[in-house]
Parts: sequence; C-alpha cells; structure tokens
Amino acid sequence: MTEARKVYGSLNSPATLKVLALLFELDVPFEFVAVDLDAGEHKKKPFLSMSPFGEVPVVYEEGGIIFFESRTIMRCMAHQYGHKAGEEALIEWDSRKQAVVSNWVDVEDHHFEPPALKLIFELAIKPGKGLAPDEVAVAEAESELAKVLDVYEARLEKFTFLGSEKYTIVDVLHLPNMQSLLGTAAKKLIESRPRVSAWCSNILARPAWAKVIDMQKKAQDHSAI
Amino acid sequence: MTEARKVYGSLNSPATLKVLALLFELDVPFEFVAVDLDAGEHKKKPFLSMSPFGEVPVVYEEGGIIFFESRTIMRCMAHQYGHKAGEEALIEWDSRKQAVVSNWVDVEDHHFEPPALKLIFELAIKPGKGLAPDEVAVAEAESELAKVLDVYEARLEKFTFLGSEKYTIVDVLHLPNMQSLLGTAAKKLIESRPRVSAWCSNILARPAWAKVIDMQKKAQDHSAI
Repeated sequence: MTEARKVYGSLNSPATLKVLALLFELDVPFEFVAVDLDAGEHKKKPFLSMSPFGEVPVVYEEGGIIFFESRTIMRCMAHQYGHKAGEEALIEWDSRKQAVVSNWVDVEDHHFEPPALKLIFELAIKPGKGLAPDEVAVAEAESELAKVLDVYEARLEKFTFLGSEKYTIVDVLHLPNMQSLLGTAAKKLIESRPRVSAWCSNILARPAWAKVIDMQKKAQDHSAI
Repeated sequence: MTEARKVYGSLNSPATLKVLALLFELDVPFEFVAVDLDAGEHKKKPFLSMSPFGEVPVVYEEGGIIFFESRTIMRCMAHQYGHKAGEEALIEWDSRKQAVVSNWVDVEDHHFEPPALKLIFELAIKPGKGLAPDEVAVAEAESELAKVLDVYEARLEKFTFLGSEKYTIVDVLHLPNMQSLLGTAAKKLIESRPRVSAWCSNILARPAWAKVIDMQKKAQDHSAI
C-alpha cells in the first residue's frame, strides 16, 4: 500500500530517527523513502526542490505540503495526532505547560545536540573510519555536555520527564543522540548522573524506539546481502 | 508602575531585541530589567536560577513562570496576544499555515542566524574593538549567508513575507541581525537581491522596531552622561 504521507530520510540521520520515533509513537501511517546521503542525493535536484537547504528528513503530505525542519514536523505531528486513545500523549494541551515543553525543545536544539553531535563524530564516526579522535575537541565537547546534563539532572529532580510530567516530544528528540552517546566513552557523563541515567533507560525502552532500531537493523541486514 | 511581566535582557543582545520588537508589536506591557553582560551578571547567581544556561533574555511572568529561550517566548506571546483589534497579527491561526510559519522559524534559527552572527562579529564587533576581521571566516560566512538569501529570494517571489502572506514572528526574528548586517560590508548580499532587499526595508520600517531602536538610543545617551 502506498501511503499519502511520505518521509524522505536516512536511517543514519539523527533527525530522521527522531521523526520516525514520533510517528511510531503516534501510530501515524507513512511510507519511508530512503535518501542516499553517501551519494549526495540530498544536495541535488529533485530533492532540493523539497528541502532547499539539502537536509533530511522531509515530510511530504497529501496536498503537496512539505516540511523540512525536523522539530517543526514533530511539533505539528504531536499537535495533530497527540490525542491517543485513553491518554493525551506527547505534548501538553494547556498553553502554559505547552510553552514549557517548547522551551525545552529549544534547549535540546541549542544546548544538548551541538556537543552531543561533536562527541558522536569524534568518538564513533571517526573511529569507524579508522581515524583518531581529536582529543582537544573531545574534551571541549565533554565539558559543554557535562554542563547541560547538570541542568537536566536538576530538572529531573522535579519532573519525571524532561519537558513535563509525561513523555513528550522533548524526550523523543533526545533518543538517537543518547543512544549513540551510550555506545561511546562519553557514556560516563550520563552514567555518573543518576536521574539522567534513569531517564535515559526509561525513554530508550519505549516500544516505538524499538521499532526504529528494528528498521535500522533490517536496512543493515538488507545492505549486507 | 511595576509590571507583572519582566523582561531581563540586554540592548546589545539580538535575542533580547527580537523579543522586545514582538512585545511592542503586540502592545504587551512589560518592565525591562537590564542585565549587565559586560560584568558577567548573566553567568552568576541569582540570574542563573532563572536562565540555567546563562543567556538573555528571560521573561518572568506572574505566578513565577519563567521562559529563557527567545523563540519559545515569541511563539507563546504571539499565540497569547496575537489577536489584535481588527487583525489577526503575527502568527497564522490555521494549523497548516502555522506549521509553515514554524518551519521558517526553525530556518532562521538553523540557517540564517549562524552566518549572520559570524559576519556581525567579524565586520562590526571586532573592528569596533580595533581588531581586524578574519578574512577567511568572513568569506566562509558570506558564502553560507548567500545560499540562505537565495532561498529567501525564491520564497519572497511567492509570499509577501517570509513565513506567510502576512507579517509574522518569522520576520520579527530577522530584525536585529538584518539591521546590523546592513551596517557592514555584507550589506551587498542583501542589496543585490531585490526581493530580499525590499522585504528588509519593509520589515525594518515597522513602528514597533522604531521603538526598540529608540530604547537603544536612550540607553546609549544615558550611559554617555
């Protein structure tokens, strides 16, 4: 069956994985279209006509509506489909609480992700290509990330999840990079903070996240044939 | 009169100026509390208890609700006060159009502001301190900004404003950095694109922006006494 909603992305892109985790969480049907980043498909036409800055993921909806910023996609999907049977999932509906969630979406964007991506690049991607990490860059990014995780540790003293008392898009946004960091030496920054560590285990155990990991595994098995 | 809403910020901070421009646009009453960035007041207690990453602006509202991410402040204020007499200002109320506005808020955040701030630092702040700009950094940032402005030029062929047919928070977000860029050699990037240039002139002529400039001038005159 061909779905009206298409998600163009890569299973190697954290932003794509964030969006997929949310769509599984919301039980929203979609068709995944793999974009070959290694071949530079995202920097060429026709992809550039959907995503003018050449970035994945892109969500294409019936009626030709196109979104190419992952956090916008997630805010909108959560608003559109967040009323799940029996629970009000993934965002807050009270405007004040929603504003607090929005504040922590921006925190992930501006404070957590930059040092997280630097560490993943130095400690996972470069060694995977046989390159040595830049120790100065690692130390700087670790110090930056440590400060962010201190703020999270204090926040998680008051709230079960990062944005609110319930699981929201703020937590979903952290999944791919937290999963990757836990596979590197930087995991010490997470494991040394008990509340951050417990929150990570909690969110990474979501069945919707397991579906994303499963998609990745199947794609890897397929490409290994 | 002391207002219940306080905006803690600096008139040298683009993020503060963006929030002030929006509050004037919405006729929302507030009290401005200057934070002395030169003295590092934003990196010390008690300010850090409001803004855990030590950044301005912070909006403190009655009931102790605190927001410290400027784009969140603007999204929320526009939703709360955007229904102005006779016009529906600053955001779109239709959820699809609102999502498009949100997409372009993220574009300003991820694509426009980083090269804009680099150029303002190299071409305005450093020369103001008697330092020479780093020509390599300038060339890189100019090339990056040129690509963004090409996307804007194409977008403005279809829409009067960047996020929508009407003036929204997307446009407000561009005011301080566009104003600063126009005072540097990088203005050629704006002036060589007719639609971007006309849009800049249009948004910089908003009376609410004139009020922000007036606040800056009064503060400068005061500090020169």
